[in-house]
Amino acid sequence: MRLSRFHLATVKEVPADAEIASHRLMLRTGMIRKLAAGIYTWSPLGLRVLSKVQNIVREEMNRAGAVELLMPSIQPKELWEETGRWEKFGGQLLKIRDRKDAAYCYGPTHEEVITDFARNELKSYKQLPVNFYQIQTKFRDEIRPRFGVMRAREFLMKDAYSFHLTADCLDREYRVMYDAYGRIFTRLGLQFRAVQADTGAIGGNASHEFQVLADSGEDAIAFSTDSDYAANVEMAEALAPAVARSAPSATLERVATPTQKTIDEVSAFLGMKPEQCIKTILVRGHDGLVALCVRGDHEINEVKAAKLAELPGESVLADEAEIVRVTGTRPGFIGPVGLPDSIPVIVDRSAAAVADFVCGGNQDGTHYRGANWERDARITRIADIRKVVEGDRSPDGHGTLKIARGIEVGHVFQLGSKYAEAMDATVLDDAGKARVMQMGCYGIGVSRIVAAAIEQNHDDAGIRWPEPMAPWRIAICPINAAQNAQVREEAEKLYEDLSARGIEVLLDDRGLRPGPMFADIELIGIPHRIVVSERGLAAGTFEYRKRNESENRAIDREELLRCFS
Amino acid sequence: MRLSRFHLATVKEVPADAEIASHRLMLRTGMIRKLAAGIYTWSPLGLRVLSKVQNIVREEMNRAGAVELLMPSIQPKELWEETGRWEKFGGQLLKIRDRKDAAYCYGPTHEEVITDFARNELKSYKQLPVNFYQIQTKFRDEIRPRFGVMRAREFLMKDAYSFHLTADCLDREYRVMYDAYGRIFTRLGLQFRAVQADTGAIGGNASHEFQVLADSGEDAIAFSTDSDYAANVEMAEALAPAVARSAPSATLERVATPTQKTIDEVSAFLGMKPEQCIKTILVRGHDGLVALCVRGDHEINEVKAAKLAELPGESVLADEAEIVRVTGTRPGFIGPVGLPDSIPVIVDRSAAAVADFVCGGNQDGTHYRGANWERDARITRIADIRKVVEGDRSPDGHGTLKIARGIEVGHVFQLGSKYAEAMDATVLDDAGKARVMQMGCYGIGVSRIVAAAIEQNHDDAGIRWPEPMAPWRIAICPINAAQNAQVREEAEKLYEDLSARGIEVLLDDRGLRPGPMFADIELIGIPHRIVVSERGLAAGTFEYRKRNESENRAIDREELLRCFS
Repeated sequence: MRLSRFHLATVKEVPADAEIASHRLMLRTGMIRKLAAGIYTWSPLGLRVLSKVQNIVREEMNRAGAVELLMPSIQPKELWEETGRWEKFGGQLLKIRDRKDAAYCYGPTHEEVITDFARNELKSYKQLPVNFYQIQTKFRDEIRPRFGVMRAREFLMKDAYSFHLTADCLDREYRVMYDAYGRIFTRLGLQFRAVQADTGAIGGNASHEFQVLADSGEDAIAFSTDSDYAANVEMAEALAPAVARSAPSATLERVATPTQKTIDEVSAFLGMKPEQCIKTILVRGHDGLVALCVRGDHEINEVKAAKLAELPGESVLADEAEIVRVTGTRPGFIGPVGLPDSIPVIVDRSAAAVADFVCGGNQDGTHYRGANWERDARITRIADIRKVVEGDRSPDGHGTLKIARGIEVGHVFQLGSKYAEAMDATVLDDAGKARVMQMGCYGIGVSRIVAAAIEQNHDDAGIRWPEPMAPWRIAICPINAAQNAQVREEAEKLYEDLSARGIEVLLDDRGLRPGPMFADIELIGIPHRIVVSERGLAAGTFEYRKRNESENRAIDREELLRCFS
Repeated sequence: MRLSRFHLATVKEVPADAEIASHRLMLRTGMIRKLAAGIYTWSPLGLRVLSKVQNIVREEMNRAGAVELLMPSIQPKELWEETGRWEKFGGQLLKIRDRKDAAYCYGPTHEEVITDFARNELKSYKQLPVNFYQIQTKFRDEIRPRFGVMRAREFLMKDAYSFHLTADCLDREYRVMYDAYGRIFTRLGLQFRAVQADTGAIGGNASHEFQVLADSGEDAIAFSTDSDYAANVEMAEALAPAVARSAPSATLERVATPTQKTIDEVSAFLGMKPEQCIKTILVRGHDGLVALCVRGDHEINEVKAAKLAELPGESVLADEAEIVRVTGTRPGFIGPVGLPDSIPVIVDRSAAAVADFVCGGNQDGTHYRGANWERDARITRIADIRKVVEGDRSPDGHGTLKIARGIEVGHVFQLGSKYAEAMDATVLDDAGKARVMQMGCYGIGVSRIVAAAIEQNHDDAGIRWPEPMAPWRIAICPINAAQNAQVREEAEKLYEDLSARGIEVLLDDRGLRPGPMFADIELIGIPHRIVVSERGLAAGTFEYRKRNESENRAIDREELLRCFS
């Protein structure tokens, strides 16, 4: 592509509400332009990148045996009433009335439409399994759209839906899709992790999120240094320490801690490490209070706590009045030693392995030192109730955990029979009996991937595209081409030669001075830059630089063509 | 593609409301499935064809120098208010309110959005000309959606918008697009004509429609046997006859025609040809009646008549009471001889060339015979006011006209400054002065093309795809493969060999009996069919048949591979 014939319009200033790097860079490069809140036009530059993502997603879905179709964006209310989601989906569902006052929505997802399609098309088990996918525009009426296309209202998604006679068959297809997703994100050149996800309200069984690693990610994920293990921090299991608890060696002693309440304050005051302290939290149980004990350097994981049999399905802190009434002590001085018998004491696996610990004195202004489980403090039950931290052993037994932040760009679910049952989507099995189909669903946020890739790959000068996503692989920058026929001709010749090899090359023939030209090429993130200059040509070379390196290298024509063939 | 891994679901019965062939065949083949009125899912089979159209459109737009982008489907009301179209567009505009009660529409077209994009992106004449296009989903809330995807509410369109400093530059791009459209429809393998169109309410200057020829088309078009000339019948000029009017040879004579009113009745009764009769129609002029005279075998063209200076911009028939009051005669007996002087007589070019004609007697129950212009009947003005008919001379002087029906699949317009002025889209010219940009717009109904192609290419057995649009080029049909290993292996081998040559091949491995298998393959319109059978293999051949031929031909492997390489 000759840049003079391509509409490129980079800008210097971006609105203050562009809070994250990808949003700022997509606006500065002109990849996107805002039309309305959460609604963006993809400029020619932006669309080139978006199309590359689309193509890779499509190729790998096809290779995995999924079949592409295209469902409408406008969906009738009646289908959504069959699953109860017309009401349950909430405010994100953009509801529409047509000129005849019939009710529709702009599809935020397509479970209803595909299940309707499937119940009409699929009559026999012989037609199964089948996996339909589409790459299509969706709309979710986010109450606070932000971060550009990262959380837009109108966005491009790949959604796939598979149909099966049995749960086993669904399991197999789930694995096929899991592997295909791995290939997609690998081919895109992104650092990512497939993490076990809490299926939450969507229902069904297995579920994995595909997370692109980036410091600005909204999700914290834990992954193993030595294996494929990865999970949302909320879901990652914290194993018991490998070393068993030591025998008590200290005597229990009450110490005055008149103003020290937090672990940091207490441990500093008493000269102990936080991990030798026990933190006790009182929460509401089915009837009465429940004590949760974790090590001073650990945090309660509320998702895990909510699942404890002693709790009513959620973890709610007791209020100060209730704590004082039941224990006679103010929060900050509560501990497991001498707690009323009515309060179950749930001790985290790591906390249970500590001997000679510090804990609250159950008397205002005091703590205990030299406390020990069993001898001084009751354990009702040991359980995994804390958040994992870096350095924890990986739950699969291989390596230790690291914590990183991620951006969710894909999600695979086993839906089971949820939608098929609600919409009566059945096929006849080999005995001629109608059976509800098993379903899987598999989403990829195509437009979001573009933003996530930038979050992961940028520097002060701009975007650093992974090659498979770059709008062009190589940029040719001629210096003073207007004044120098040789520079002009050599740049043209190189452009033609590389293009003829099927390489996507951008020739910057806008006639800009080197500074602004290089700034644009770096900003839009072209992986390889070749400068054609009078001085270089005199030496028979071009100046070559990779986007992620800081040094130029002189390279002659032959070597260049060899590198890019 | 192995058909067993592709979801194909043909059906026997289609709803009675599928009135036209393409609608019926798209439902029978399963290419589309209705989700709601005018809203369709494109099945895997349908999408394969739709994608082929998209790809050809995209390639030719790129080749013509247009630059692809992607605008949102949801557009804010404010932009539509700037052009006044929020109200003027009418009921087809699907209006939407989001959760914050802000008003939007689902874009039926993108002039507002692209003009807004352009006024923000384009600052200088140096950025011009530029032509932006997209292939994108649109919604028009048709009051009576029908004919399947031919007149759907949600549909896929390619829309392009070009921006220019001058009208000359717009003219040049218009020609570039006109040529690109010609290449697109030629590459798609369709019979089409580019016809001059009435720009109607859309405004601007030049405008051409691209019409796919098909008997079921809604538009009648006239085109030359010997040149590129083509125009909507409403627009085609009817030249004066090449031969001048003969001198009068008969005497004027009133004859009784007691019950004969129509041209057919009168000409049969008097033994004259319809072309020797003059038909006179009275319409409402600015004040009083105006007579329009055409030959008995011709029809008034209301579009042309409406443009006459004597008429108020529309052609409205006078009612019977008014005709009787002014002329003393009932309709059916009106003629140009002896009409009151207050009535201007506008005579069509062909009518003006007739001598010794029959016309109404301006007295109930009578006609004149042997009437002649000037001698017996006044001519206020000669004008082109009739519809062209087959055999008329082509207005460009080359050949004669033929009339065919067409389906509009593309439209190119010169919008001029209409939108740019309303939305204040200016650039600085080389003198630093702000100038309103000139715009062109260029649409192609991508999903409609699929239906139009079927209207043009089908028979009783199903669709007969032009090769460039076919879902696959070749189908391989093995007979009794389950029972015959050699058939199975040879079919597989042929499938692999042809696929390896980059040819799109469908292997029908569903295990159907020959009858249903052939019926499906013909129905879905695969251009080439190769049957692999025990008998054929014994003779060292396959049975080959083209979709549009009725005979099989024995062909050996070598010849086959040579034909498709």
